[in-house]
Amino acid sequence: MTVNVGVIGVGLIGQDHIRRLTTVLSGAAVVAVTDVNAEQAASVAAGVKGAPAGGVKVHGTGQELILDPNVDAVVVCSWGPTHEEYVLAAIAANKPVFCEKPLATTQVACERIITAEVELGRKIVQVGYMRRYDPAYQAMKQVITSGEIGAPLMFHSTHRNPSVPGHYTREMAITDTAVHDIDTARWLLDDEIISAQVVKPRKNSLGGDLEDPLFILLTTASGAVVDIETSVNIRYGYDIRGEIVAEQGTVELAETTAVQIRRGNALTSRVPEDWRERFLRAYDIEFQEWVDALAAGQGVVDGAATSWDGYAAAVVSDAAVQALHDGTVVPVALIEQPALYR
Amino acid sequence: MTVNVGVIGVGLIGQDHIRRLTTVLSGAAVVAVTDVNAEQAASVAAGVKGAPAGGVKVHGTGQELILDPNVDAVVVCSWGPTHEEYVLAAIAANKPVFCEKPLATTQVACERIITAEVELGRKIVQVGYMRRYDPAYQAMKQVITSGEIGAPLMFHSTHRNPSVPGHYTREMAITDTAVHDIDTARWLLDDEIISAQVVKPRKNSLGGDLEDPLFILLTTASGAVVDIETSVNIRYGYDIRGEIVAEQGTVELAETTAVQIRRGNALTSRVPEDWRERFLRAYDIEFQEWVDALAAGQGVVDGAATSWDGYAAAVVSDAAVQALHDGTVVPVALIEQPALYR
Amino acid sequence: MTVNVGVIGVGLIGQDHIRRLTTVLSGAAVVAVTDVNAEQAASVAAGVKGAPAGGVKVHGTGQELILDPNVDAVVVCSWGPTHEEYVLAAIAANKPVFCEKPLATTQVACERIITAEVELGRKIVQVGYMRRYDPAYQAMKQVITSGEIGAPLMFHSTHRNPSVPGHYTREMAITDTAVHDIDTARWLLDDEIISAQVVKPRKNSLGGDLEDPLFILLTTASGAVVDIETSVNIRYGYDIRGEIVAEQGTVELAETTAVQIRRGNALTSRVPEDWRERFLRAYDIEFQEWVDALAAGQGVVDGAATSWDGYAAAVVSDAAVQALHDGTVVPVALIEQPALYR
Amino acid sequence: MTVNVGVIGVGLIGQDHIRRLTTVLSGAAVVAVTDVNAEQAASVAAGVKGAPAGGVKVHGTGQELILDPNVDAVVVCSWGPTHEEYVLAAIAANKPVFCEKPLATTQVACERIITAEVELGRKIVQVGYMRRYDPAYQAMKQVITSGEIGAPLMFHSTHRNPSVPGHYTREMAITDTAVHDIDTARWLLDDEIISAQVVKPRKNSLGGDLEDPLFILLTTASGAVVDIETSVNIRYGYDIRGEIVAEQGTVELAETTAVQIRRGNALTSRVPEDWRERFLRAYDIEFQEWVDALAAGQGVVDGAATSWDGYAAAVVSDAAVQALHDGTVVPVALIEQPALYR
Repeated sequence: MTVNVGVIGVGLIGQDHIRRLTTVLSGAAVVAVTDVNAEQAASVAAGVKGAPAGGVKVHGTGQELILDPNVDAVVVCSWGPTHEEYVLAAIAANKPVFCEKPLATTQVACERIITAEVELGRKIVQVGYMRRYDPAYQAMKQVITSGEIGAPLMFHSTHRNPSVPGHYTREMAITDTAVHDIDTARWLLDDEIISAQVVKPRKNSLGGDLEDPLFILLTTASGAVVDIETSVNIRYGYDIRGEIVAEQGTVELAETTAVQIRRGNALTSRVPEDWRERFLRAYDIEFQEWVDALAAGQGVVDGAATSWDGYAAAVVSDAAVQALHDGTVVPVALIEQPALYR
Repeated sequence: MTVNVGVIGVGLIGQDHIRRLTTVLSGAAVVAVTDVNAEQAASVAAGVKGAPAGGVKVHGTGQELILDPNVDAVVVCSWGPTHEEYVLAAIAANKPVFCEKPLATTQVACERIITAEVELGRKIVQVGYMRRYDPAYQAMKQVITSGEIGAPLMFHSTHRNPSVPGHYTREMAITDTAVHDIDTARWLLDDEIISAQVVKPRKNSLGGDLEDPLFILLTTASGAVVDIETSVNIRYGYDIRGEIVAEQGTVELAETTAVQIRRGNALTSRVPEDWRERFLRAYDIEFQEWVDALAAGQGVVDGAATSWDGYAAAVVSDAAVQALHDGTVVPVALIEQPALYR
Repeated sequence: MTVNVGVIGVGLIGQDHIRRLTTVLSGAAVVAVTDVNAEQAASVAAGVKGAPAGGVKVHGTGQELILDPNVDAVVVCSWGPTHEEYVLAAIAANKPVFCEKPLATTQVACERIITAEVELGRKIVQVGYMRRYDPAYQAMKQVITSGEIGAPLMFHSTHRNPSVPGHYTREMAITDTAVHDIDTARWLLDDEIISAQVVKPRKNSLGGDLEDPLFILLTTASGAVVDIETSVNIRYGYDIRGEIVAEQGTVELAETTAVQIRRGNALTSRVPEDWRERFLRAYDIEFQEWVDALAAGQGVVDGAATSWDGYAAAVVSDAAVQALHDGTVVPVALIEQPALYR
Repeated sequence: MTVNVGVIGVGLIGQDHIRRLTTVLSGAAVVAVTDVNAEQAASVAAGVKGAPAGGVKVHGTGQELILDPNVDAVVVCSWGPTHEEYVLAAIAANKPVFCEKPLATTQVACERIITAEVELGRKIVQVGYMRRYDPAYQAMKQVITSGEIGAPLMFHSTHRNPSVPGHYTREMAITDTAVHDIDTARWLLDDEIISAQVVKPRKNSLGGDLEDPLFILLTTASGAVVDIETSVNIRYGYDIRGEIVAEQGTVELAETTAVQIRRGNALTSRVPEDWRERFLRAYDIEFQEWVDALAAGQGVVDGAATSWDGYAAAVVSDAAVQALHDGTVVPVALIEQPALYR
């Protein structure tokens, strides 16, 4: 019942997922890898724990890996622009595929994936929006679903990074950073986003020329309002906060600290350093559930981000980027949702 | 050294301030009152604690009360549209006046007050924005001023009421409710607001036809962004929250609960029922500082909301109301600030 | 209706109470003072705010001050060993007296006070256990009284000081420090303490030779157990914590911080520096309620620490000191409680 | 590199560990089981996920299972009185053994295990004190070890259960409940306990005749004091709290809640229902580390509870039980610690 996984792209994230699949989780094996850097592929393959008797197969291309009969399912961690072709190939081979975000780099590409999956008639593409597996967001979702605070009206989401690398652009605050909040909003509110606006506070001087922070405003089909603060040079830590405001109450993420220290006239608790620390468990749970779902014959985890969700996140991100450029409120235009995703 | 106060308008708020001045604070006496309802004025006068030998004088009009030689200073708690004439009369009489918000109901009226005070050449008009005296907001201001988190870039402010009376209109969410957040923003950021926008989530069904909640966005001269959530039918309690996001850190209001209870599978703490409970101390401190400042020969408390602040709050509120009506971003146009207020 | 107060002992605490009575609270005036240091008495008298026309009277002795016909009520802040005679004189003069702790320095002296007050037939002696007026302890008491967590079984009390002066002895950890927790325990549990034990952890090296911390165990008549940690060299701040464990739930003091700061990988909130900061409000409320009670014709505030409470705290402290010396469990032997105090 | 595990005792805990080893963790397989109830053993064996080709072997006895050449390591979850013989047999077979607490039911039995392991010359016995793997306790340990709060002087530990089954005795509050706090204290303080005392508050009426709560006092070789509250009928939830008081600061376990809800005049967060919920992650980490250590050729995890720790916990528990019976302070007499455990 072991799920044999092939991994396309073995950079930092690919290696981390291999580590996860082979040394943290149950029920999976990594049997094949590939990378544009063949040397790195070979080196990573050699270090895989619990490799099959003949070792981990190193393929020359992702296409080849997907067609490898020993590969049950595919994890795509390669460079974003290559995602589309691998996902489409996995669909063609009818093999479940876990694709790190983005699903594809253009809306049209996402639509092609949706078309192919709809033709296949079965959901087998899962996109790596790991917050859906974070125990705190899960608890938040449960409170909303329980109805105990009434229908949601607003979602305040805060996404802070201590710093970003030099190549980080203002658009990436949307496409790389806020896109997680966008997916979370759609999932928590169970609603589509229909417009985007971006408000620009003056720049944080610690971020040089980067337009940071941003304040992104989204509205949903049902009329809920989502606001997302992205502050990516705030120095103090990696901090993810969120609050749902509903008709008769609210629910918000609690502090994640494990202990509180009293020292030097202060009560202090630690803020995570980076996303790895904050979402480590979410990644583990995401992949375990994926492996378990595949072992149970499903193509994706119930409630996971599907191709549709990957597509919607891309369209909303694009609208927000345009709003950032134009300073206007930009409508979000989605294609009609195929029945497969309802 | 007792400050002898005359109170114009002895409805609920006027009575509460009389109670405060005569049974809670030090250094003040209430020597005169007036009200459009003469009977009520007499009844309240009869019940004043620590009244002077001859009793509390009941005047037929606010003008008369202001001119009463026994009255050192005036508190205006009458109906909003009457504020202007009383404040102007107090300025004419060169008597310090504490005016509950609003300073006046139109921008032009506020400007007339400013003109009169500038002519007097001395600040003697203080407006009742009590949050400036709340110990938590004071601590927040101190953190900002200390520089320990760097320059402020954003202010997230949340203003929630369990419910509002039937006559409450959508405009009042700005002019009565958010106007406190507006003054707080100007004071905390030490900055003028230059534009306003209002985003409307779908209506909370518990508020009937009222457009509630609102999400108000302001920008300041230095480029900081302020967002204010007003939720006035949220049932769960009166809840005031605020967070300043600065260049290298943040400061936010802490929970105000005194004790935590563990019972029935939950750790719970109480949320205040209404603004009286939440800001009781702020009102006490505000008035004690006012009495102390007057006893020390000042016309207003250092750092208090002046005529200028009352005017600016009115102009920003008006802009926000227009933004609510129009759906546009409305610029805030202030007159040039007289040197008296710099 | 002003309550005219005479203050015996105008050291730091006496001066602070004079400041409180004359510049913070309503309804009181300080009309007379005395001190063993006549020069200091005169100097303090000259600085009293809102002094009567003829100035504040400086008396040569406490007895004289008590008999001054202008003095309605007496505050005793002199050296502990002198408390008894002043309290007895006030009883003899039938003038309400607020006595800072201790009521007297020996059990026998306390008993003499009780006898005198019982003979007077009216409670007019109030002892300065200010925690009973702290809003957080008040909220805790209310939760217990409401019955919502059931009958109390344990009280965990923590009393921490950043440091203590060189003359501080191990006995003072009980008689000066823990005596507040002892009074609080009796008041919260509405129960008498019947035995005391002291457990000695190894010494905090920051306290030199002082036996610090101590862990004091008390049992009450109904069988509740109280444990008190005194740590008086803990450096990090002045920290008072408390938790009542009841049959089906608990209630504990919440953090007192006003704001939370995020900076440098930590979420931090401030711990008070000393007891003045932590209990400032409790002192203000305590004295305002005392003044109000006196103005209303009462001899003490309802629920205040009476002579009986001052006596009981002394007896329990003595038993704990003996337990500290002996290492045994020492029974607490109170005289029969006079009906006046039931 | 898969670690093949045999499980002795497949009641609720045994089944839970099988589930953990086969569906949650990486690197382990369950290849053999046994139980006094042969039918249950067969039924559980049939349901094991990822069983080897020939299925899970069902052995007639634990001894047989231990000698099974396919079994690399043994997990003992059988009835407490049987632990000794299985652990001794595992030592004799030189197979690592994970023994759920207690290591054995008498001190003498524990000593026999220690003797056998010392003769083997290698630590291969690990005892199931899972708190050592709880992320919050791990963080607490790290703070202590870092030296940032100075040397520890006290440990306040609170262990609360909503209710206990009818067969639960007052001794079990020590041997089943507080024994976890005892192990935690020894581990956190890195110190041996040398005496025990038990203070008995009056009984919680919700616990019927059971002497509950108890307040257990321990002292360590270095002079630190440990107090443990066991409240096993407190209804409100399963609540584990702990605070280390050190020379210049403290560290305490933070709340474990994931989200905070505002509703009905309260801010609430959930308290765990039972130990499964609270320590689920600790069990997972404990077993993953054990499997990883075995795969790496170690006999136990570094820092795990060894035979010595199991023995010490038993001796301290016995002393506390005697203290409960006698009302005295009972010394803890350990044998000399063999070099193997230092």
